[in-house]
Amino acid sequence: MVQASDFAFSGLHIPGNTSDAMGFRVTLVSMTQIPGLNTLGICLHQVDYAPWGIVPLHTHPRAIEILTVIEGSLEVGFVTSNPGNRHITKILKKGDVFVFPVGLIHYQRNIGYGNAVAIAALSSQNPGVITIANTVFGSKPDISTDLLAKAFQVDKSAVWQLQAKF
Amino acid sequence: MVQASDFAFSGLHIPGNTSDAMGFRVTLVSMTQIPGLNTLGICLHQVDYAPWGIVPLHTHPRAIEILTVIEGSLEVGFVTSNPGNRHITKILKKGDVFVFPVGLIHYQRNIGYGNAVAIAALSSQNPGVITIANTVFGSKPDISTDLLAKAFQVDKSAVWQLQAKF
Amino acid sequence: MVQASDFAFSGLHIPGNTSDAMGFRVTLVSMTQIPGLNTLGICLHQVDYAPWGIVPLHTHPRAIEILTVIEGSLEVGFVTSNPGNRHITKILKKGDVFVFPVGLIHYQRNIGYGNAVAIAALSSQNPGVITIANTVFGSKPDISTDLLAKAFQVDKSAVWQLQAKF
Amino acid sequence: MVQASDFAFSGLHIPGNTSDAMGFRVTLVSMTQIPGLNTLGICLHQVDYAPWGIVPLHTHPRAIEILTVIEGSLEVGFVTSNPGNRHITKILKKGDVFVFPVGLIHYQRNIGYGNAVAIAALSSQNPGVITIANTVFGSKPDISTDLLAKAFQVDKSAVWQLQAKF
Amino acid sequence: MVQASDFAFSGLHIPGNTSDAMGFRVTLVSMTQIPGLNTLGICLHQVDYAPWGIVPLHTHPRAIEILTVIEGSLEVGFVTSNPGNRHITKILKKGDVFVFPVGLIHYQRNIGYGNAVAIAALSSQNPGVITIANTVFGSKPDISTDLLAKAFQVDKSAVWQLQAKF
Amino acid sequence: MVQASDFAFSGLHIPGNTSDAMGFRVTLVSMTQIPGLNTLGICLHQVDYAPWGIVPLHTHPRAIEILTVIEGSLEVGFVTSNPGNRHITKILKKGDVFVFPVGLIHYQRNIGYGNAVAIAALSSQNPGVITIANTVFGSKPDISTDLLAKAFQVDKSAVWQLQAKF
Repeated sequence: MVQASDFAFSGLHIPGNTSDAMGFRVTLVSMTQIPGLNTLGICLHQVDYAPWGIVPLHTHPRAIEILTVIEGSLEVGFVTSNPGNRHITKILKKGDVFVFPVGLIHYQRNIGYGNAVAIAALSSQNPGVITIANTVFGSKPDISTDLLAKAFQVDKSAVWQLQAKF
Repeated sequence: MVQASDFAFSGLHIPGNTSDAMGFRVTLVSMTQIPGLNTLGICLHQVDYAPWGIVPLHTHPRAIEILTVIEGSLEVGFVTSNPGNRHITKILKKGDVFVFPVGLIHYQRNIGYGNAVAIAALSSQNPGVITIANTVFGSKPDISTDLLAKAFQVDKSAVWQLQAKF
Repeated sequence: MVQASDFAFSGLHIPGNTSDAMGFRVTLVSMTQIPGLNTLGICLHQVDYAPWGIVPLHTHPRAIEILTVIEGSLEVGFVTSNPGNRHITKILKKGDVFVFPVGLIHYQRNIGYGNAVAIAALSSQNPGVITIANTVFGSKPDISTDLLAKAFQVDKSAVWQLQAKF
Repeated sequence: MVQASDFAFSGLHIPGNTSDAMGFRVTLVSMTQIPGLNTLGICLHQVDYAPWGIVPLHTHPRAIEILTVIEGSLEVGFVTSNPGNRHITKILKKGDVFVFPVGLIHYQRNIGYGNAVAIAALSSQNPGVITIANTVFGSKPDISTDLLAKAFQVDKSAVWQLQAKF
Repeated sequence: MVQASDFAFSGLHIPGNTSDAMGFRVTLVSMTQIPGLNTLGICLHQVDYAPWGIVPLHTHPRAIEILTVIEGSLEVGFVTSNPGNRHITKILKKGDVFVFPVGLIHYQRNIGYGNAVAIAALSSQNPGVITIANTVFGSKPDISTDLLAKAFQVDKSAVWQLQAKF
Repeated sequence: MVQASDFAFSGLHIPGNTSDAMGFRVTLVSMTQIPGLNTLGICLHQVDYAPWGIVPLHTHPRAIEILTVIEGSLEVGFVTSNPGNRHITKILKKGDVFVFPVGLIHYQRNIGYGNAVAIAALSSQNPGVITIANTVFGSKPDISTDLLAKAFQVDKSAVWQLQAKF
């Protein structure tokens, strides 16, 4: 039986708690919250940012993202694929919109002195999130220190320091 | 050359003019406004509603829509396909989200006494809009009055009256 | 076990009963009738038309339709999306073919004095049908009279009259 | 400018000339005949069969086919993939429908004493046709006789005989 | 629970037994062998060829194939669709790569005096294989001799001879 | 005009030069090298590894990868999405196959004392490569040191050290 509750979600009006180390919080609105989104290839995130809070470098392996600033100001950026690795960045004010292409590494940072809020639409019902630092230096079990030292061209002690944080 | 301006859009912060007969205004953010959306299968609309303004019954032939209320309160609804034709409706407050499945007839109405604003993400770079009343009674040239009278089971004068408005 | 009966259907040779108010009858040949059509993205309809019978204005939210006249003569038409709402129409004779693009409102009318028959192929195993009049004025429960009056720019009594028919 | 002629085709009412060796003729209705079919993923064929005429063994590399008998009686069949190679066959009368899955080898034969006519809808705007005998024994240039003799486990003279016909 | 064994396969290092009539053996690496390939739209085959062994004429109804020669030399070819039926052929040495388009009839033959090995990647988790000779002359049950005689333009005794081999 | 050269590539038999800092070299076989791969959704890479050479942590934003070891032994691994970030790793010998899911961060390392060679098939004609270290610490222009220090939870001098290497 088709019901309104399968197509609706309430809760974005509650400001997200942004008190962790990075200073952001994501509220998901995907098929778990709205069953009617199943197979529809789209979902939504609200992001709340503390002053100077960041959403650290991450990718969505299965979706592009289109972000609208609802409150405050954000610095946003992404980096293109090899071999260019061009860094595309922009300051967004309330009402500005920005697109992050599928699978590219990107980030946001609140550059205002108050809180900021954005709404992100993603082109998948299950976009996935890969936070670079957590994945590279905080995987379970660890990636071998030797290999990370070579990949990032630092000595092992620098890798241990990074692994200790994640 | 990849440029930030290909991925960005400014302008949703300007309140839309909502003074027409229906009392709403749509600001598009699709591949015309953001070239980087080309082939990415998603676009965005901001909708501004005057008090009691409606977005009249319409469909998007190529997209589902996920609507978030940014300001005010909306009554929203859609009707399922034949043979059920069930009318699914809900009152949305600020922060509520609602999904309109692909191709189904749907509407929104501002039920508050002030303005309302919503952001709609659509799962196509070119979703299309078909407003039912304009399409049925305002096509160029007109659909034959006989045929419309039989389809809507009214007499021809009722059809003429409707055709005169669109 | 693969069986011929999973890929076959008999029954289009029985003329459809066309004695309802509109004067048409659709015989479906989709995955319910032919299990082998499952996941194949195509289905078939036979349409029988009484003299002057119409298939009233409707859309298929998930398919385009390609119609071939097997017997008789039909007037067919569709209306393009906003903002053009152009009405494209044509008279078809036996052996003529016409295409209705995905999601657009369209209709057919038998303009001969005898019966007519057409075969329609649709690009989905489950195309869906939305008959405009039934959906707008006959939904369960009703869409609010106020809202319909504003959307169609008529007074409420005209809406009640329409709602009484569907 | 959208025009009715982009969505329409006339000509299926002219019986096809079926006087070649196989006794069939296909009249195509694809995007070349109807520009509006472009990107829509569907096309149509009318097939005319002389008495005992066959559409010899062939595949469509990019489409499934759904065939409706309009006139006469047909024997139809297809063979499943390795390792089963099951032969699925059926006698179709006027009004019967049969589905040929994508890429499988299939055929039709008129088993009535008069002409037969069928309409085939295919799930691609450009389905392609590979007639097995012409492709294997009539390619330009020839496939090596040695290789064909080994593949079909016959001696070279049998291959030459087959190659001489195509 | 995600496990390495769901993403890995061992066994391509064992030379395939190539002692049948055709002189080849295919080792599959698809979702049955690697569960992690499920829904990923790709699979792999290792092919071992005896001296002068052939992979006889066949199609993959749901995949294109990209073949790399790991050891030895191969003659490869495919034939284009109607009406051209052009035979495209090439001699490949170790390290050469060749592409067979989706659904087209193709073959390989070892033209060296030792064994040959190739790795084929296919663009489907379930590409299917249709060996032409087995499908046409070895289906269960047989396709009618009359029909095959007409399709291949030979007399019935030639068809019986072919059917006896498969 | 269809030509064999549009479907073929020679050059994988030349061992790749692996003398850079990481100790690997990729030879591409995509639509630039084989025009016939255009729109076919698949391409190929040969990877040559020096002893202890690594292909450092990277993602393919638009493809899954299926890797076959042709020579030598490799340690391979990938890390799953948030929140698990599980590290899946395995030692591969000649003839072993491994799958890297779309968009996930992965790596390979030659653990033998001689060279190693692998062939990777990717499920896109244009899979893209994002090497994590180059993208995060070597983008043009740089991502702000502040932001990277917060994202990786190290002090700015550690970020400068990393940025100096890429």
